[in-house]
Amino acid sequence: MSGAVPGEGPGAPAPEPLARARLLVAPGLSASLVRELERITGRGAEPLVDGVTAGGRLLTADGPLLCVGAVLPDALRTERLLWFHSVNAGTDPLLAAGPWPAGALLTRTVGRMGERIAQYVLGWVLAECQAVPEYVAQHARAEWRRLPTELVAGQTALVYGTGRIGGAVAGLLRSCGVRTVGVGRTARTGAAPAGFDRVIGAGAGPGVKAGLGVEAEAGAEAEELAGARWVVAALPLTGATEGFFGAVRFAAMRGATFVNVGRGATVDPVALEGALRSGGVRRAVLDVLPEEPAAPGDPVWRLPRTVITSHSAGITADEDVAQDFAACWEAVAAGRRPELTVDTGRGY
Amino acid sequence: MSGAVPGEGPGAPAPEPLARARLLVAPGLSASLVRELERITGRGAEPLVDGVTAGGRLLTADGPLLCVGAVLPDALRTERLLWFHSVNAGTDPLLAAGPWPAGALLTRTVGRMGERIAQYVLGWVLAECQAVPEYVAQHARAEWRRLPTELVAGQTALVYGTGRIGGAVAGLLRSCGVRTVGVGRTARTGAAPAGFDRVIGAGAGPGVKAGLGVEAEAGAEAEELAGARWVVAALPLTGATEGFFGAVRFAAMRGATFVNVGRGATVDPVALEGALRSGGVRRAVLDVLPEEPAAPGDPVWRLPRTVITSHSAGITADEDVAQDFAACWEAVAAGRRPELTVDTGRGY
Repeated sequence: MSGAVPGEGPGAPAPEPLARARLLVAPGLSASLVRELERITGRGAEPLVDGVTAGGRLLTADGPLLCVGAVLPDALRTERLLWFHSVNAGTDPLLAAGPWPAGALLTRTVGRMGERIAQYVLGWVLAECQAVPEYVAQHARAEWRRLPTELVAGQTALVYGTGRIGGAVAGLLRSCGVRTVGVGRTARTGAAPAGFDRVIGAGAGPGVKAGLGVEAEAGAEAEELAGARWVVAALPLTGATEGFFGAVRFAAMRGATFVNVGRGATVDPVALEGALRSGGVRRAVLDVLPEEPAAPGDPVWRLPRTVITSHSAGITADEDVAQDFAACWEAVAAGRRPELTVDTGRGY
Repeated sequence: MSGAVPGEGPGAPAPEPLARARLLVAPGLSASLVRELERITGRGAEPLVDGVTAGGRLLTADGPLLCVGAVLPDALRTERLLWFHSVNAGTDPLLAAGPWPAGALLTRTVGRMGERIAQYVLGWVLAECQAVPEYVAQHARAEWRRLPTELVAGQTALVYGTGRIGGAVAGLLRSCGVRTVGVGRTARTGAAPAGFDRVIGAGAGPGVKAGLGVEAEAGAEAEELAGARWVVAALPLTGATEGFFGAVRFAAMRGATFVNVGRGATVDPVALEGALRSGGVRRAVLDVLPEEPAAPGDPVWRLPRTVITSHSAGITADEDVAQDFAACWEAVAAGRRPELTVDTGRGY
């Protein structure tokens, strides 16, 4: 029943089933976004309610399904699912919740996420350079005193992840004169991608997840970690990236500030705490945590020199969802695989 | 005795007097900077001490004088002063302290000031967009809650001052997608200078210093002030800019954040307070004040939604002074007027 063409991997759904697919929208989507999805697809939307599993209507009704939302209800893990569009960029919760229905297309919303996350990272980087929290505190004491500030130009930032997000982060840091080094899964040959002065492969030393890099690159990574003023984590969560930032990588840092805008579970919290206590990590800015929201008693709040933000770096606005879904729709209508397709095997 | 060529305005000192000029260095200059100045000029430095006025040596000794420092001692307001190089960019205190010795060249240190001030402005802009102070406060309460943030892209910033500093500020804001409007003394024709999407002349309405702009532009300025999310003041202090940001300009703002990296006295403090209380000005970040340092009892500390920093946006490092002085020296040696020459009549 799936429209994916066998042998071509996750392709675009075929026109015929797509034309008669029912449009299901998850709870929580705003009325204006739902209207926009109806406009794009030329059909009425059916809201997903508890009844999707209990009432059984969906399971017994005919027809292929197209669904827009954040999570895939179990009742939709069926061969009748033609296409799921995620309102989020990170699809690991979707993929972790159960096997992905064979042949179903998974697309995601990236929106202006690269731009937003890049501004988040640069904002926290410059806030530290300009001693923003310290000046705010000093102001509250009515104290006029010069505090040390830093010119970020000439410093080095290591950015883990060389895709859209990492590239956007690096590009914006570079506009402030920062030297940007990208760390990808493997070494690259030829020119570094836009935004990066250099791209290296992640080393595969002890404590480092296997399969992520090449042994020969471990030295280059350790050297860059030692010289970095900023280490930005923008990795998706996959089997290969869980605990990626562990004792070995943190031990290689010499006073870098660590900013995580990827996924919380890519960081080993015990190793991070050790590095913060030893000074190997100067400060940490964590937009993502292994468990969100963090409870008031969570030990993560007691990490020294750390600020936790609320998974807010890369929010997606309604217009982002509508725009990215429209682009996917257009590609599918033209028989193309949308650019925002998620490789459900690889996980991003 | 001055080396300035009559009829050519403040030119380069002539080679002959410069060759035998004594090098005076102000107190407070670091030993390494003094050594660098000695290297550049090929002569030993004489430190300025209290004796400069009391001991009388300088006044009675022969020879033209070349001085590097922050302030010009009264004893050096003499026709024997050939050249004064300011270790600061702002030379208004120098010029306000007394009449400038006829024919003496005044040069200044700009250093990486444009770059530093631009990073200061962008740092505070993004810190506000990313709710940095609010997240720091929330973190202290161990509270995980999403706070509103802003994407700065697409917003408008008015930058008063279209010279090196203003241009650097605008250029960096623009790299984050901000629409930048420069406000200069007069309207410009042709393409806007680098960093700006548009440049207009300052209006000359009531409450606005005369001589700064053209009446016809007042409408354009008021309109841009109303639409601006950010208003950045990067004006030098001259007779024409004192109190420049007064009731009229503040009344035209509709929720802009006001950032002053120019001079404190360009702002009418009563008008600013009124605009902060009415909401016309959303927040203020003041790196400069009419009186610095501000005493603990200064009413400026009680301005709502304001942060005062300590004239730290555009610090000059020793290497900046050495580098800029060397460039001036090279120009003078070649008989050229250094690019960093201050027009002592205009004040910058």
